Amino acid sequence: MITETRLQKELESLKENLLKMAAMVEEAIGNSVQSLVKRDSELAKKVFQMEEEINKMELTIDDMCLRLLALRQPVAVDLRFITSAMKIVTDLERMGDQAVNIAERAITLNQEPQLKPYIDIPRMAELTQSMVKDVLDAFVNRDSKLARSVCERDDLVDSLNDQVFRELLTYMMSDPKTIPRAAHLMIVSRCLERIADHATNIAEDIIFMVDGLVIKHHADVKKEE
Amino acid sequence: MITETRLQKELESLKENLLKMAAMVEEAIGNSVQSLVKRDSELAKKVFQMEEEINKMELTIDDMCLRLLALRQPVAVDLRFITSAMKIVTDLERMGDQAVNIAERAITLNQEPQLKPYIDIPRMAELTQSMVKDVLDAFVNRDSKLARSVCERDDLVDSLNDQVFRELLTYMMSDPKTIPRAAHLMIVSRCLERIADHATNIAEDIIFMVDGLVIKHHADVKKEE
Repeated sequence: MITETRLQKELESLKENLLKMAAMVEEAIGNSVQSLVKRDSELAKKVFQMEEEINKMELTIDDMCLRLLALRQPVAVDLRFITSAMKIVTDLERMGDQAVNIAERAITLNQEPQLKPYIDIPRMAELTQSMVKDVLDAFVNRDSKLARSVCERDDLVDSLNDQVFRELLTYMMSDPKTIPRAAHLMIVSRCLERIADHATNIAEDIIFMVDGLVIKHHADVKKEE
Repeated sequence: MITETRLQKELESLKENLLKMAAMVEEAIGNSVQSLVKRDSELAKKVFQMEEEINKMELTIDDMCLRLLALRQPVAVDLRFITSAMKIVTDLERMGDQAVNIAERAITLNQEPQLKPYIDIPRMAELTQSMVKDVLDAFVNRDSKLARSVCERDDLVDSLNDQVFRELLTYMMSDPKTIPRAAHLMIVSRCLERIADHATNIAEDIIFMVDGLVIKHHADVKKEE
C-alpha cells in the first residue's frame, strides 16, 4: 500500500514536470514567432536559452521514467502512461528544436526589409501553441476528446502552411529579389507545421492509449488486442 | 532461470524485428529517391505500400515492448534497451513518412521536364540509407563507435542540403519558370535531411545508453548519474 501511494505520488510529479516542459515549449514557440513579427532579435536569442532548459527537462523526465520503471515496476495503465511520457518528451524536445530554427530564420529576416505583413504565420503559431498545451492536458487527464480536437487543428495548420507556401511562390515568381526572404519564410512556416505534426503524433498516441483505437495510421478503426 | 532465458529469447526477437523494420525503411528511402532519378512513378507508388507495412511494424514492436515491460519486468540494461526500442520505432516510422513525402514530390516532378541532373540528392539518399542501417546495427550490438560515425555523416548530409538549397535558389533567381520544380526539390532535400536527423537522434541515444554520456544536447560531456 505504501508502495502504491509512492508510485501515485511519483506519477503526479511526473505529470507536473511534463506540463512544465510543455509550457516552456509553448513559450519558446510564441517567442520565436514574436521575434519575427516584432522584428526583435533579442527575443529570438531568448529562445536559444529556453531550448537549453527544455533539453535539460527532457533528460530529467527520461530519468524519472526509467527510475519509475525500474524501481516501481508498474503495470497496465501506469506502465503505458510512463512509456508514453518517454515518447512525449522526445516530441517536446524536437518542438523546441523547431522553435530554435524559427528564431534563427527570424534573426536573418530581421536584418532585411520586411517582405510582407505577417498574418498567417502568427495564426499558425497560435494554433500550434494551443495544440501543445491541449495535447499535454489531454495526456495527463486521459481526455481523448481533447486529443481529437488537437488532430483536427492539425488539418488547419496544414492548410495554412499550403497557403503560405503558394503565396510565397507568387512573390518569388513576380520578383526574384524576394526569393531569399520568401525561402526563409517558407521554412518558418514548415517548422510550425512540423511542431503541429509532433503535437498530432502525441494526440494519436493518447487516443490509442485511452480508447484503445488505432487511428494513427489511418487504418480502419481497430480494437486494441 | 527459465524466465531469464525467455526474456533473452524475446529480446532477440525484438532485435530481429527492429532490424527488419530498419531494412524496410532503408528500402523505402531508396525507392523514393530512385523514383525521382529514374522518373519512375510506379516505384513511388510502391513506397506508399511499404509505408503501410512500416506502420504495422511500429504497432507490433510497440506491443512487444509493452508486453516485455509488463510481464518480464526487466531492469538495468534490458529495461533501457526496451524503452530505447520504443523511441527508435517512432523515429523509424517517421522516416517512413518522409520517404512518402519524397515519393509524392517525385510523382509531381516526374510530370514536368527534369530541371537538372540529380547528383547531390541521390548522394544524400545513399548517406541517409547507410545511417539508418548502421544506427540500428549500432543499437542491437551496443556499438557506440558505429553510432558516432552516424553522427559524423549527419554533418555531411546537412552540408549537402545547404548546397542543394543554394544551388536551387540560383535556378529560381535566374529563371522564375523553374521555381515550382526547384521548390519541390528543396523539399525532397529537406526530407532527406530530416531522415538523417532521426538517425542522428537514435545514434545520440545509443551513445548515451552505452557510454553514459550526454552528447545529445551539445552539452559538455557529462557522466551519467
